[in-house]
Amino acid sequence: MASDDKTKRIEARTLKGFQDFFPEDVLTRRRIVRRIEDVFERFGYRPLETPALEALDVLLGAGGENTNKELFRLESPEGEAIALRFDLTVPFARMLSQYPERLKPPIRRYAMGPVWRGDKPGPGRFRQFTQLDIDAAGAESAALDAEVIAVMCAVMAELGAARHTVLINNRKLIDAVLEACGIKDEARQKHVLRIIDKLAKVGLDNLRHELGPGRVDESGDPIRGAGLDAAVIDHILEFIAIQAPGRMAVIAALAEQLPDSPLAAAALDEMRELAEALDALEVSEEHARFDPSLARGLDYYTGPVFEMILPDAPGFGSVMGGGRYNQLVSRFSHQPIACTGMSVGLDRLLAALERLGTQPAATDGVQALVVTMGRVPRTESLRLAQELRAAGIRTEVFIAAKKKMKLAAQLSHADHYGIPVAVILGEDELAQGVVAIKDLHEGKEARAHITERDAYREAGKTGQEAVPRAKAAEAVKAILARQSAE
Amino acid sequence: MASDDKTKRIEARTLKGFQDFFPEDVLTRRRIVRRIEDVFERFGYRPLETPALEALDVLLGAGGENTNKELFRLESPEGEAIALRFDLTVPFARMLSQYPERLKPPIRRYAMGPVWRGDKPGPGRFRQFTQLDIDAAGAESAALDAEVIAVMCAVMAELGAARHTVLINNRKLIDAVLEACGIKDEARQKHVLRIIDKLAKVGLDNLRHELGPGRVDESGDPIRGAGLDAAVIDHILEFIAIQAPGRMAVIAALAEQLPDSPLAAAALDEMRELAEALDALEVSEEHARFDPSLARGLDYYTGPVFEMILPDAPGFGSVMGGGRYNQLVSRFSHQPIACTGMSVGLDRLLAALERLGTQPAATDGVQALVVTMGRVPRTESLRLAQELRAAGIRTEVFIAAKKKMKLAAQLSHADHYGIPVAVILGEDELAQGVVAIKDLHEGKEARAHITERDAYREAGKTGQEAVPRAKAAEAVKAILARQSAE
Repeated sequence: MASDDKTKRIEARTLKGFQDFFPEDVLTRRRIVRRIEDVFERFGYRPLETPALEALDVLLGAGGENTNKELFRLESPEGEAIALRFDLTVPFARMLSQYPERLKPPIRRYAMGPVWRGDKPGPGRFRQFTQLDIDAAGAESAALDAEVIAVMCAVMAELGAARHTVLINNRKLIDAVLEACGIKDEARQKHVLRIIDKLAKVGLDNLRHELGPGRVDESGDPIRGAGLDAAVIDHILEFIAIQAPGRMAVIAALAEQLPDSPLAAAALDEMRELAEALDALEVSEEHARFDPSLARGLDYYTGPVFEMILPDAPGFGSVMGGGRYNQLVSRFSHQPIACTGMSVGLDRLLAALERLGTQPAATDGVQALVVTMGRVPRTESLRLAQELRAAGIRTEVFIAAKKKMKLAAQLSHADHYGIPVAVILGEDELAQGVVAIKDLHEGKEARAHITERDAYREAGKTGQEAVPRAKAAEAVKAILARQSAE
Repeated sequence: MASDDKTKRIEARTLKGFQDFFPEDVLTRRRIVRRIEDVFERFGYRPLETPALEALDVLLGAGGENTNKELFRLESPEGEAIALRFDLTVPFARMLSQYPERLKPPIRRYAMGPVWRGDKPGPGRFRQFTQLDIDAAGAESAALDAEVIAVMCAVMAELGAARHTVLINNRKLIDAVLEACGIKDEARQKHVLRIIDKLAKVGLDNLRHELGPGRVDESGDPIRGAGLDAAVIDHILEFIAIQAPGRMAVIAALAEQLPDSPLAAAALDEMRELAEALDALEVSEEHARFDPSLARGLDYYTGPVFEMILPDAPGFGSVMGGGRYNQLVSRFSHQPIACTGMSVGLDRLLAALERLGTQPAATDGVQALVVTMGRVPRTESLRLAQELRAAGIRTEVFIAAKKKMKLAAQLSHADHYGIPVAVILGEDELAQGVVAIKDLHEGKEARAHITERDAYREAGKTGQEAVPRAKAAEAVKAILARQSAE
């Protein structure tokens, strides 16, 4: 059937860093998204949705240098500079300023959708990926930060309870340490934070060099250092290494090392309030732990920051992350709105769950395939399929390029697409007012070698039964029930 | 609280032709999408998903001149020319060529997602809009075209049975007429089709001019004509005006006017097979009608085309549309794959359903708001909210910028966001181990004027009851049940 012409064909390809999803992928993702959204709604969050494109100035500078570089930029038909959103948080801040009456604080919202970053693609790292976000706006209360952390844990519980821990820190802590060392410039503080954020990736030795004079990375590129003194670096590294059994114990240990400054006192107060709220929300010590080394890459965080890790899937890094950002809305409005929130990286979370084997089971997909044998008019198979659908069975009717196909070829379609039941309409069956119902989980191997009707009749008896047409739907449902009980 | 600084603010705005969605919008859209997808699955369609961005050459020329002009173009980080997809059909054709083994024909797939066109925005016309598509690939069978039409009708039945009709035509019919008039050039045939497609928009007189020498539109711009002779124009207009009671009657009337040519015979055969399959699928004459004037704008259709209109919402034009496209996959591959399908324009369909008042009712959203009075620790309201959530109630706990807020102000938050039940925890209640549950559908007016606790106690009795804390969830559920029965 291949066409003979020599027309130039366009290469069918997926762009670098992008993904196509097959039916089983889409169904799995949807199941998980729905369950996550159910958790968000249980905590009183409401959905908002914004377009993929935003004015460039809305996005530029909101996330920091890296996200600026990674923006997919283009032009509107009117020639305005626009770009694809790189997260769901900045558009939320935009909406808060734009609709102050309708989105009157306090407001909790959730959002789900793709975001785009022109990052270097890698395993589990895509240029279009899906985020699920919650954000609570309108109050600078550690109870809200705690609630966001509780939602993170509730999501994991909902998805099958893989072992999980939210690491929690507060930007004010490290700022207080830096301030006490004489580093009061905000840009410099953020530079140090971005370096600390790389701890897990580059290791302690490289971190030490980057805090100091800088280093040369594996590819030979120089990395500019923060230029801190050795004593300051030691102090920082000692501080971020603090550990203790339990949230209150970590706070006590931090308090010992922190300078006696208003900033340090404020940070400790916030941590204490957060710890109390976590207890009230029944978030256990195992599921939420204070870790002074946690930094987070984005520039807009101003207080508590959090990241969820899965101890049994350490290679995947953090599968959710967030923090408090009290200044982001001020980009747009003289009326500041305190916000906190978090984002689930769906693609990475799914990859991790797949590795751990804790995905919820599939219950969707096509349930029955109507096939024919001999001279059965097409209209008859259409009618039969409609009867099954009317009974609530997801039914495909086999229609292929070749009008006559052997039964084995038709059944191999069911095998290829994982359809569990065949409903067979032959000339004899049609005349007798019956159909043959076949459980395709049975006798699959024997079937692979059958090409003739007689042979099929013989070997096909496995898992096959003839029923009156009026009972067809009932018989299909019985097989589906049996299969799902297996 | 307004900030004093004079920093330059970025204007918070939505791009021209784009939409932000508020919670009630998102929830309505989601309900409808889920129901449409359920119908697709009932007919054996499987979901596929492709990225928003494609290589430019994959999209360019696939839809015709108009879609070329309307593409949002940009560059990949590697400098490759890329663009946002303008429909879901071209990416499906791309996937069919790219994964011939995994997506072995015959295959039915559905897809849902945003597409982008740099069109002139207008009422109900957006630059980002959502499509829901089904496509059946791998067989040139009118039974599949009929199935697609049956799905269109099943979707409308599922969404509340507004009056609806699918108009059906076949491109081969008008091609046969043009061929008999000596117009055999494909580009010219497509030009005539595009003009016929404007019938509903411009009216018969303007159509006549465009088929002939051309005309000047309302804005004074010249429109190039097809340059047909008056006799040919008359013949075309007579042909597309053919009507008859019933599908078979229309076919008979068409047969009388058509030339005796192989193309005409093939077109009539296809129409007959389609009519028989529609009968088998129980699609009534009222719901699917042959209309020789239907053209459709996109270039890639090769046979039957269809459009759904809602007679009671004529201003909205077609809310679904599609047709057979046997050549699109040949853009990518020497192996042609016959395809047919249709697309639901979600935004337009929703606008029409809203106008008709036939949207399914909402059953989602936040159900309870926890509020406090007097000196109740924050941790207590967090605990109470968790108890309600554990019982399956979608619960928000009121946390605002001001730590102490009057009850009336807290309840006005519930009014603003449409939360139906308040769970009130006061100092006394806390001491007594009870909570006050308030049905917010009752006494809403009286509440607007109350600012003090005593006054509230008096007037608040409407719809309010004190229950032991352990019975709180039960009491909330009873109120929700009562409200939904109202």
